[in-house]
Amino acid sequence: MKGFAMLHIGAIGWIEKEKPVCGPIDAIITPLAVAICTSDVHTVWAGAIGERHNMILGHECCAKVVEVGACVKDFKPGDRVLVPAITPDWNSLEAQAGYSMHSNGMLAGWKFSNFKDGVFAEYAHVNDADGNLAHLPDSINVVDACMLSDMVPTGFHGVELADVQFGDTVLVIGIGPVGLMSVAGANMRGASRIIAVGTRPLCVEAAKGYGATDFVSYKDGSIEEQVLAMTDGKGVDKVVIAGGTVDTFGSAVKCLKPGGKIGNVNYLGEGDTIGIPRVEWGVGMGHKQINGGLMPGGRLRMEKLGSLVAGGRLDVSPLSTHVFEGWDHVEEALLLMKEKPADLIKPVIKLAD
Amino acid sequence: MKGFAMLHIGAIGWIEKEKPVCGPIDAIITPLAVAICTSDVHTVWAGAIGERHNMILGHECCAKVVEVGACVKDFKPGDRVLVPAITPDWNSLEAQAGYSMHSNGMLAGWKFSNFKDGVFAEYAHVNDADGNLAHLPDSINVVDACMLSDMVPTGFHGVELADVQFGDTVLVIGIGPVGLMSVAGANMRGASRIIAVGTRPLCVEAAKGYGATDFVSYKDGSIEEQVLAMTDGKGVDKVVIAGGTVDTFGSAVKCLKPGGKIGNVNYLGEGDTIGIPRVEWGVGMGHKQINGGLMPGGRLRMEKLGSLVAGGRLDVSPLSTHVFEGWDHVEEALLLMKEKPADLIKPVIKLAD
Amino acid sequence: MKGFAMLHIGAIGWIEKEKPVCGPIDAIITPLAVAICTSDVHTVWAGAIGERHNMILGHECCAKVVEVGACVKDFKPGDRVLVPAITPDWNSLEAQAGYSMHSNGMLAGWKFSNFKDGVFAEYAHVNDADGNLAHLPDSINVVDACMLSDMVPTGFHGVELADVQFGDTVLVIGIGPVGLMSVAGANMRGASRIIAVGTRPLCVEAAKGYGATDFVSYKDGSIEEQVLAMTDGKGVDKVVIAGGTVDTFGSAVKCLKPGGKIGNVNYLGEGDTIGIPRVEWGVGMGHKQINGGLMPGGRLRMEKLGSLVAGGRLDVSPLSTHVFEGWDHVEEALLLMKEKPADLIKPVIKLAD
Amino acid sequence: MKGFAMLHIGAIGWIEKEKPVCGPIDAIITPLAVAICTSDVHTVWAGAIGERHNMILGHECCAKVVEVGACVKDFKPGDRVLVPAITPDWNSLEAQAGYSMHSNGMLAGWKFSNFKDGVFAEYAHVNDADGNLAHLPDSINVVDACMLSDMVPTGFHGVELADVQFGDTVLVIGIGPVGLMSVAGANMRGASRIIAVGTRPLCVEAAKGYGATDFVSYKDGSIEEQVLAMTDGKGVDKVVIAGGTVDTFGSAVKCLKPGGKIGNVNYLGEGDTIGIPRVEWGVGMGHKQINGGLMPGGRLRMEKLGSLVAGGRLDVSPLSTHVFEGWDHVEEALLLMKEKPADLIKPVIKLAD
Repeated sequence: MKGFAMLHIGAIGWIEKEKPVCGPIDAIITPLAVAICTSDVHTVWAGAIGERHNMILGHECCAKVVEVGACVKDFKPGDRVLVPAITPDWNSLEAQAGYSMHSNGMLAGWKFSNFKDGVFAEYAHVNDADGNLAHLPDSINVVDACMLSDMVPTGFHGVELADVQFGDTVLVIGIGPVGLMSVAGANMRGASRIIAVGTRPLCVEAAKGYGATDFVSYKDGSIEEQVLAMTDGKGVDKVVIAGGTVDTFGSAVKCLKPGGKIGNVNYLGEGDTIGIPRVEWGVGMGHKQINGGLMPGGRLRMEKLGSLVAGGRLDVSPLSTHVFEGWDHVEEALLLMKEKPADLIKPVIKLAD
Repeated sequence: MKGFAMLHIGAIGWIEKEKPVCGPIDAIITPLAVAICTSDVHTVWAGAIGERHNMILGHECCAKVVEVGACVKDFKPGDRVLVPAITPDWNSLEAQAGYSMHSNGMLAGWKFSNFKDGVFAEYAHVNDADGNLAHLPDSINVVDACMLSDMVPTGFHGVELADVQFGDTVLVIGIGPVGLMSVAGANMRGASRIIAVGTRPLCVEAAKGYGATDFVSYKDGSIEEQVLAMTDGKGVDKVVIAGGTVDTFGSAVKCLKPGGKIGNVNYLGEGDTIGIPRVEWGVGMGHKQINGGLMPGGRLRMEKLGSLVAGGRLDVSPLSTHVFEGWDHVEEALLLMKEKPADLIKPVIKLAD
Repeated sequence: MKGFAMLHIGAIGWIEKEKPVCGPIDAIITPLAVAICTSDVHTVWAGAIGERHNMILGHECCAKVVEVGACVKDFKPGDRVLVPAITPDWNSLEAQAGYSMHSNGMLAGWKFSNFKDGVFAEYAHVNDADGNLAHLPDSINVVDACMLSDMVPTGFHGVELADVQFGDTVLVIGIGPVGLMSVAGANMRGASRIIAVGTRPLCVEAAKGYGATDFVSYKDGSIEEQVLAMTDGKGVDKVVIAGGTVDTFGSAVKCLKPGGKIGNVNYLGEGDTIGIPRVEWGVGMGHKQINGGLMPGGRLRMEKLGSLVAGGRLDVSPLSTHVFEGWDHVEEALLLMKEKPADLIKPVIKLAD
Repeated sequence: MKGFAMLHIGAIGWIEKEKPVCGPIDAIITPLAVAICTSDVHTVWAGAIGERHNMILGHECCAKVVEVGACVKDFKPGDRVLVPAITPDWNSLEAQAGYSMHSNGMLAGWKFSNFKDGVFAEYAHVNDADGNLAHLPDSINVVDACMLSDMVPTGFHGVELADVQFGDTVLVIGIGPVGLMSVAGANMRGASRIIAVGTRPLCVEAAKGYGATDFVSYKDGSIEEQVLAMTDGKGVDKVVIAGGTVDTFGSAVKCLKPGGKIGNVNYLGEGDTIGIPRVEWGVGMGHKQINGGLMPGGRLRMEKLGSLVAGGRLDVSPLSTHVFEGWDHVEEALLLMKEKPADLIKPVIKLAD
């Protein structure tokens, strides 16, 4: 089969590979649409997860099932499915402890385009089909469905980690596609005020649509100065970090009330340490909880978040600013994500209806 | 009245002051026993909370009530009481949100020897007597009672912040009096293995008595190397930090499994930032929760923790290694805490029976 | 002063009373608007809380402060305020444990028109002004403000007790004013499907506006049969009970998935026992959690929920179907609530702008 | 192979069956020791789970692995293992939601001697070996190991459901083997006072050893009268129900403070409904949370609780009052459990060392 791969750090291209083998509880799928993630860019050009040779890229897609193992009960060839970026080993100790995304190792629930070939290929392997796939509702089109692989579950997990409650003032740092979903999630969870940090006009508009009430630009001074000024010096109840660097946590802690919580879902690619400011963290005792976590994947998560899109409660269509048709456009779409022009949020490649 | 005060940074001595005035919901108490806290040393000689002039020191005591305000219902002159180091304003927004220790400002539930005069005096003022005092059970002697002001609630709070569960392996960093209470608390909350970091023989013995099963000395290499070796490379479920510096958090994160939690109750007196190691924190997504918080104070907390001591479930007597009699010994006891000889855990001054 | 009172069970009328006395931490208020609650009807005609003589009725209002005690810091005469139906003693043991509504006794945070005179009077007494009042935002009119005393906090508390999460299917039983706020709250907390039980056309319309997606009428058969049919026999994730009787819990348990939660905020006026069906409750082991609780009151709650209304996130205006002007209309409004005509949700009496 | 079976309701005996077949992720085990559970008695003589024909009984054992499926990674023939009574399908939606014991149906994580043959046989089938078995620590003997199948995890789960915290007063109703483990668990989780309901002298002695501080006998009047008298009318913070009937919940609610929690782990075999007293449940609003749940099973649970026994923190040996040697004694042991003589807690049959 053909797959679009990272040949090695800095190099990409189409390769030929053996079709993956289906284990007794697994499935083989063929994508209906795929989307490009910023992580694909980091993986190839920043070497973020280390060297890889001829590894097929991609972890965002929806698909059609082409084969299932003998023990699979709920899926059969021909079924149209949502596919999460994170596909845990559900019987692992970590999953039993409630942290399926770290099944058999920290972050090791992330398999596609990390520990095995990804979904930018004619065929892809899904471990534990009953546990990790979900039926694609008819009312979700294949482009929108791709947003459920990673963007929605990651953005919403930031809101869960920050534990947003009715009437909270929430700061969302970063309004790329994940941050936009954090804005939508904070809004859907009852925040009364959502202060978003970002400057790209397209994203600012989208953020307003998703419920952001106030905006801060890092170009106008430090985040903390602006946020404290906007809140009469009191700060915010919760912070979702969906962009920035290791230094962003300093601002987050400074903006946060005692008793507040930070939920980070941003991949931190550089820097030795994340610096937590000692004094503003209450000299160790300010009850400013710091959370950071990979999105929960698997079937239940897909079904639950899918139901929000299927029922019209969450409109993800503003995310897919660039929709291509056919495998030929994968390279173009990936390079577009690398360049990040002003009018881009997410590039998606449609392969079937 | 007479009080033993910090005259200014670096200088201590007895001073004469007006007896405090009792508001309508407050009480005036006279200590039965007082204990010296490491923070008293930091306050005076490190200037940890900034400059103070003629501020009476001390926040650990048990006492007798001498006066109550007109609205106080449950206490009357002559009552013997437990007195928490932290005495919140219970109607504050922060207390209503569940963070009473930060009532009306981060850490501002800590009033004694911080925002007002402390308890090393003939008389001391307690805000909100009904909300902050607790009746001293007959079965607790006045020396042990002092351990309930700060050592027990702080040490146990570390265990609560780390969310210790049945069968957990818990790392307790620091086995001074607070760390010892964290060991006792982790044991009382169902840990199956407690790895303690500390070297002083007296404290190591006490930690064994409180349930520590393994010991690590920072003199034998890094904490993380030793702990990972002891746990077959898996790390621990939870970490309580009850000693060390801003650098201790790096070790804690490295020792921790994904899905684990850190509970810090150590006052961090120096350093600009607490450094969280990026890679071992799962590049931002390892679900290693970082908590740090001031002890909850107030009446309910005193009653609950007091019941453990009163009922014989928790023996705090090993903490009080040096017991003096009479106000004359306050200076000696404070200087002893500053010097920290090998045979010292806590100095206590008994003033009555 | 004049007050509209329950003279004894079954009898109402205007009476003359002494103006209440203001304690050192308290306030005296004069209402700007008051609303009638179904509990006022229960109190008078069903004797729900027992006999009362010449007790002024009412616990829903917004008001102007006319006097404050010497220790009150954040309010002064002339301030316009939100007033919660539940005004806890914040320093009580129960409040310290997180259950302020039960301060100093089960349900004893409910004081207005229960343990003391209510708000249908020229003046009313508020215990702990700093802890229990909130400044009325300019953008909330006095009629809407009355909905924040009880309807919004109670309805939303049902959602909190049921612990609604992203993508949940939620059953809301009862769509009177409280149930409507539970629908709004479930929607605001990320439910993907909200099945509402109710039949009055006005309420059905309002429920649709607040996010209900499906409707069930008890006239069409048992709730459980209909709900199980609508969910392919799987049942719902969560149930909010905002109406019905002690028998309603049986239906709720039968509709609920294992691992689900029930949040009851309905006052149960009759019956010896609430019957939990043994088999459908998993013979004691089905993990179907049963919660029921009085709304949290106090200042923080008013500020948080008030911010949702002030910011335009929650529109409570559909609740106030009947708005009267002037004290003269209190009796008429109360009798209207007793009769419950088809076009009524809530009667409100406006006294000032 | 031979197995000791329920022939039909009311009849037991040895039967011959095919050795079970091992699926790709499963294991076949042979018991080292087995224990009799009260549920075995209910299953056979009360028909508690309905009719069954020639179903091999038993769900408490430790074992040796004799065969594993091709996909099993962590176990091999010859390994000695702990075997939980509950063996979930870890990839089910319910397990993903945190309720593995209800995987693929309420209570359906309970498979042994319910939906398939149990462990009173030469060979037994274990679904998902990597997810459900745990290595038997050398320091746990085979008799004690049987207590980890059901008694320890069930008793401790009652404590988790009741959410026992430091300094709580806890009522444990029922001190059979499960209730004794609830006493031990409440003690290990920091209760300061444990009031146990039970009368058999052997169990009372064992309960004292596990930390019970007070005792109540139903022979001396109602539980609630006695408990309220013992607590100055205040009631208890938490209740664990490990015995009794559907009527026991009424007493539990009456004994409980507002804000308290009930954790039931008792199998309720009879009665249509569990009656919750309306008034004492705060007319629906008393915040007295009612929980009831089947024990969590699986590997992590066995490892965690096993570590408490292996490390000497929990001594389960007092439970095994009657230890037999050899399969010949199964019937005798089962009949003993049916008769429940005064000196019996649990009968265990040892088959190997």
